[in-house]
Amino acid sequence: MRLLIVGGSDAGISAALRAREIAPELEVTVVLADDFPNFSICGLPFFLSGETPDWRQLAHRTEFHGIELLRRCTGRRILLRERKLAVEHEPGHIAELSYDRLVIATGARPALPAIEGVDLEGAYPLHTMQDSFQVHEHLDRGVKSAILIGSGYIGVEMADALTHRGIRTTLVGRSATVLPTVEAEIGRLLEAHLAERGVAVHTGHEVLAIERRGERLRVHANPDLRLDADLVILAAGVLPNTELAAESGIALGYRHAIHVNQRMETSDPNMYAAGDCAETWHRLLKRNLYLPLGTTSHKQGYIAGENAAGGERQFAGSVGTQVVKVFDLAVARTGLLAAEATQFGFTPASTSSLDFDHKAYYPGAREIRTILLGDRNTHQLLGANMIGHWQTGIARRIDVLAAALFHSAQVEELNDLDLSYTPPLGSPWDVIQSAAQRWSREAVARQWSREHIL
Amino acid sequence: MRLLIVGGSDAGISAALRAREIAPELEVTVVLADDFPNFSICGLPFFLSGETPDWRQLAHRTEFHGIELLRRCTGRRILLRERKLAVEHEPGHIAELSYDRLVIATGARPALPAIEGVDLEGAYPLHTMQDSFQVHEHLDRGVKSAILIGSGYIGVEMADALTHRGIRTTLVGRSATVLPTVEAEIGRLLEAHLAERGVAVHTGHEVLAIERRGERLRVHANPDLRLDADLVILAAGVLPNTELAAESGIALGYRHAIHVNQRMETSDPNMYAAGDCAETWHRLLKRNLYLPLGTTSHKQGYIAGENAAGGERQFAGSVGTQVVKVFDLAVARTGLLAAEATQFGFTPASTSSLDFDHKAYYPGAREIRTILLGDRNTHQLLGANMIGHWQTGIARRIDVLAAALFHSAQVEELNDLDLSYTPPLGSPWDVIQSAAQRWSREAVARQWSREHIL
Repeated sequence: MRLLIVGGSDAGISAALRAREIAPELEVTVVLADDFPNFSICGLPFFLSGETPDWRQLAHRTEFHGIELLRRCTGRRILLRERKLAVEHEPGHIAELSYDRLVIATGARPALPAIEGVDLEGAYPLHTMQDSFQVHEHLDRGVKSAILIGSGYIGVEMADALTHRGIRTTLVGRSATVLPTVEAEIGRLLEAHLAERGVAVHTGHEVLAIERRGERLRVHANPDLRLDADLVILAAGVLPNTELAAESGIALGYRHAIHVNQRMETSDPNMYAAGDCAETWHRLLKRNLYLPLGTTSHKQGYIAGENAAGGERQFAGSVGTQVVKVFDLAVARTGLLAAEATQFGFTPASTSSLDFDHKAYYPGAREIRTILLGDRNTHQLLGANMIGHWQTGIARRIDVLAAALFHSAQVEELNDLDLSYTPPLGSPWDVIQSAAQRWSREAVARQWSREHIL
Repeated sequence: MRLLIVGGSDAGISAALRAREIAPELEVTVVLADDFPNFSICGLPFFLSGETPDWRQLAHRTEFHGIELLRRCTGRRILLRERKLAVEHEPGHIAELSYDRLVIATGARPALPAIEGVDLEGAYPLHTMQDSFQVHEHLDRGVKSAILIGSGYIGVEMADALTHRGIRTTLVGRSATVLPTVEAEIGRLLEAHLAERGVAVHTGHEVLAIERRGERLRVHANPDLRLDADLVILAAGVLPNTELAAESGIALGYRHAIHVNQRMETSDPNMYAAGDCAETWHRLLKRNLYLPLGTTSHKQGYIAGENAAGGERQFAGSVGTQVVKVFDLAVARTGLLAAEATQFGFTPASTSSLDFDHKAYYPGAREIRTILLGDRNTHQLLGANMIGHWQTGIARRIDVLAAALFHSAQVEELNDLDLSYTPPLGSPWDVIQSAAQRWSREAVARQWSREHIL
């Protein structure tokens, strides 16, 4: 029995490893378009900053015991009925591979803005190892200034990375605040930190064109902005890579990602999909969305691999958890933003708190800003955002909230959690519990004003 | 209506604040024996190390709006039927205070070993602010060496604190490894770190006597140990302070702590108890134990205050979470130890894993040792221990596990948690998920060996 996997990044390799783990007799073949199986794409900013000097360090693993890897090999056509995959190994050379089960893990590709100049030399996306080599080579030629188009995770991480290299960096984003996946209040705090570190930030700007001006590139944006730099990085999000799957006739879903159920099954009984090419089940919303993330890719690959190998497991769903480190700060979120909650029929109420990461009498205490979101009627916890120094445990505190969201907790239940405490590392009521208490106090006030004023 | 609270530390003040919050019209009086309302007793080691230079910094708060505090006032007798508390304000002067509801939050006292010499000058317990002043004064006289009796949380924290001051420190404990509230494997790692930092550690020793030898004290222990030092600190655990409550006739429970239900009600309908004087509901074991901790005191006080003020809330229970920082390391636990799990009827299986706190390609990655405990039959998560550098997020990772325990998760469900990831702060599968995967792999192997070998 042969399991064939198209894609050698997080989802594909995760599927291969899990399938082998539970069914060691299975023949597992992974077809990957490049030569970089299971490289950490999330690590590209650190390779480019110089903090991770050698790109080879980015390999999540280099041993793939019992898994056949077909490198530099691209899936070209799926023959569903015959259970065959046509692959192009060398240009023009097509071969057919048979399979019993197929996992599609073809990932995503950069969403390049439909403008002039995105393909100029010196303007690069940043999604693959190959992209990073291009940028790296360009940087080595002595770049003094750079423009980042897109103020999402990659944009803000690259602002840190390039500044780290001494490059004068400008960030241009369409959204009103940087990092639009967090609440505007948090985005503005991050913006202030970027500015403090010398990054020029232009929010609310639509890039219109890139043009060459001698040795440099010029970026035109609306309203009324003209910027020149030696390098332009295009980091305006990604789109699911689904041509191969779509041409075979299987169903696409949300934003043209491959439609899957929680078993990671596609509309074809022998085909699974996982990772950035597939939909993601949202645990709170109980519906599929498109949320391409490394953590989700690993999980979906794991589930797809297990089920393709004859197992029985469901993807429990994402609750929208993310974290990013930018200079001295970490910014993290889980659950929904207020606007998303409203859009999906909740009646959200949020509070914003400022608490020390540990008892102020122990040296080195730092403040964490927390926005906590709950439903004003049911008091269901809906989400949280945090920002503060990257060594204040923000990522893990968001994880505690993610675990609470996973279990459909109410805001007040956060208080009941038996969390650890020692003065150098926390408080008897942890930051998330102080935030929950504030939320409850304000909820009482809100209730009172509804009953007595409205 | 008057709420009277005996005890001005974590539980008492927490009860007072919560009662006032939900019933602002309530008259709230707190009777406290000393002059230090709501001081952070957990902070004493840092005051004594010099890291927290002024003891006044240890106050959790200094404002008690709307709460009457009767300082240097000791509860002497409770008249249940009359709902009166006799207090001694000045030596010999007894007054009676009426109450509608009473919260007993009299805390704990050091469990002094029943040996000769515990009351010698230079030998001190460390439980109250007053104790810490005594020790502080003694230290200021130029102590060069110290012996800590007891290798629990206070013992290991004080080993750090005194070494920080340049004092040659010896730790003597009865248990086979230091910090007997964690698994021996973890205790031994901590022991090695203590030794590395110059602390002489003697485990498995019973102290027999303390005697004065000129300017110094000599500690005799069994087997065959004789130690001399300028200062001895007695840190061999605590006992519930329950004389006042017991004399009134209310029921005591586990280890003579005041018996309470999850509403923090005692056997008297108008009397509540909370904190180190009361039993603690264990959420996993579904029974009361004695687990005196600051976090629990705050929570129990909060519940007692709310219910005493006419509210309706249950203490959700402890899952046994604790953390301590010792030199460069943090050690944390949640849930049960293997021996406890066996004692209470589970069939525990544990795994020990070593994983980096974040992707190794990003500078500064450090290893965390995790022991994960699950039930080999039901796969219910039973507990976890972690040890590693104190800046690796161990406390918060244990909190994620505590949240999972709170919700009765299975080990495999840890994999499903949508935890945050960025290379400087984690991995696509976080440490706790790698540990869960190891546990599951070994569980499969255990299952196989039971079916095929046994």
